[in-house]
Amino acid sequence: MKVAIQGELGSFSHQAALRMLPGCSIVPCARSAEVFDRVARGTWAVIPLENTLAGSVAEHFDLLLTQKAFIRSEFRLRIVHNLIAPRGVRLQDVKRVYSHPVALEQCRNLFRKNKQFEPVPFYDTAGSVKHIVEEKLRDAAAIASRKAASVYQAQILAEGIEDNKQNFTRFVLIHRTRGVAKGANKTSIAFRLKNQAGALFKALSVFALRDIDLSKIESRPLQGSPWEYVFYLDFLRGDDQLARSAVRDLGEMSEMVKILGIYPAR
Amino acid sequence: MKVAIQGELGSFSHQAALRMLPGCSIVPCARSAEVFDRVARGTWAVIPLENTLAGSVAEHFDLLLTQKAFIRSEFRLRIVHNLIAPRGVRLQDVKRVYSHPVALEQCRNLFRKNKQFEPVPFYDTAGSVKHIVEEKLRDAAAIASRKAASVYQAQILAEGIEDNKQNFTRFVLIHRTRGVAKGANKTSIAFRLKNQAGALFKALSVFALRDIDLSKIESRPLQGSPWEYVFYLDFLRGDDQLARSAVRDLGEMSEMVKILGIYPAR
Repeated sequence: MKVAIQGELGSFSHQAALRMLPGCSIVPCARSAEVFDRVARGTWAVIPLENTLAGSVAEHFDLLLTQKAFIRSEFRLRIVHNLIAPRGVRLQDVKRVYSHPVALEQCRNLFRKNKQFEPVPFYDTAGSVKHIVEEKLRDAAAIASRKAASVYQAQILAEGIEDNKQNFTRFVLIHRTRGVAKGANKTSIAFRLKNQAGALFKALSVFALRDIDLSKIESRPLQGSPWEYVFYLDFLRGDDQLARSAVRDLGEMSEMVKILGIYPAR
Repeated sequence: MKVAIQGELGSFSHQAALRMLPGCSIVPCARSAEVFDRVARGTWAVIPLENTLAGSVAEHFDLLLTQKAFIRSEFRLRIVHNLIAPRGVRLQDVKRVYSHPVALEQCRNLFRKNKQFEPVPFYDTAGSVKHIVEEKLRDAAAIASRKAASVYQAQILAEGIEDNKQNFTRFVLIHRTRGVAKGANKTSIAFRLKNQAGALFKALSVFALRDIDLSKIESRPLQGSPWEYVFYLDFLRGDDQLARSAVRDLGEMSEMVKILGIYPAR
């Protein structure tokens, strides 16, 4: 089974995809739009939606809204950063440490303890491992996933170097067809309201008056309409009569409602 | 007057700071945490909070929540991307185009029309101009602000190359002291609710029942407590009796409420 991801082989998306679909074969895509193009043609994909420290991946919410894609399951990956070097490079050889700025920022203690390390911002975590291995750098290391070390045949010099262990990313598996797994108890929707005072309050009443729990809400500027907002909301209920009534009532007061997926909460 | 920004000179934050405080002198900081450290010691700062295409800057919302900083004004900057090259480099010389991945993504038409351009991801837009100028690259250009071209004495080969003109970033001016400008009609708050069904609905009732308009709401995972959320909300009301009553009522049902700023809506 083929699964598209955004980013290089060895990325955290790669790791999440293997956890969600063991044995799948990964199709790396440079851009998220390419991932969704593949989904439109029938490929499965695994994409990150939010990280406990860095927040939502805005682009992916926007693509879920506009493209034909349905969330089939979710998975929470604990983000573990590792200091990775080309084979033969020892810890005492390392002068420069490459990684994505977010990963560098999440490993500040490493730089505090190793004053000789110079952080070098790079566009991608796994890509930084690929870079130092391909360029055969003898004084460089990179910060990335364990998977990146094995993909690029590099070695791990230090494990679990992230400062905050409460670092999780929520990934979802998407497909162009709608499908609801047995035991599905969570629904993700997007909706747009008329611009009126109290509109959001009324919208939330369709859930509150039915005692339906929300697990996420976020307003995002609507692309192409500056300072108009679309809401993304998760509620803890599967495909049952109560949930359908709530979404129907929401539809009556909204300019648009889209069900992004119904799946088991993890 | 000194104003701290995150990023290099010539960044969009630099541009926004000059528009908000003409003639100010810019203090560039590598990391956002450094900006807030300076604010704690009394420096003013200008930081981006959200972009119409890329979404919220999660780190800045988190820092506003935890650090001593008060929003004093806001400003919306239209993001105009330019193709910038070292002096003497002509359009037909350009083979590689450096910039932050978000900026590269926002200028896809440029690459469609110029097949010979290879996009090169870089950690920063203004930093990419600095890089190609300092390295004296003769076949490279960068995508960044007009300000970056003047700061690094480079030339603009093409202006306004962004695909979507509805590209705005909302910046705020912050200071450690609370102050409310005349004509302030917008309030930004953060709050955390008890984890109960309908809690958000009840919280929003304090605004809806007073006909107070909301202009933004976002739930963000609380740092250190995975899958607990803090809410960021803007409402269109200044420092008057009605707003104070609403915030007082919200406080009764919340575990925490923090006023992030009261300022004129722009």
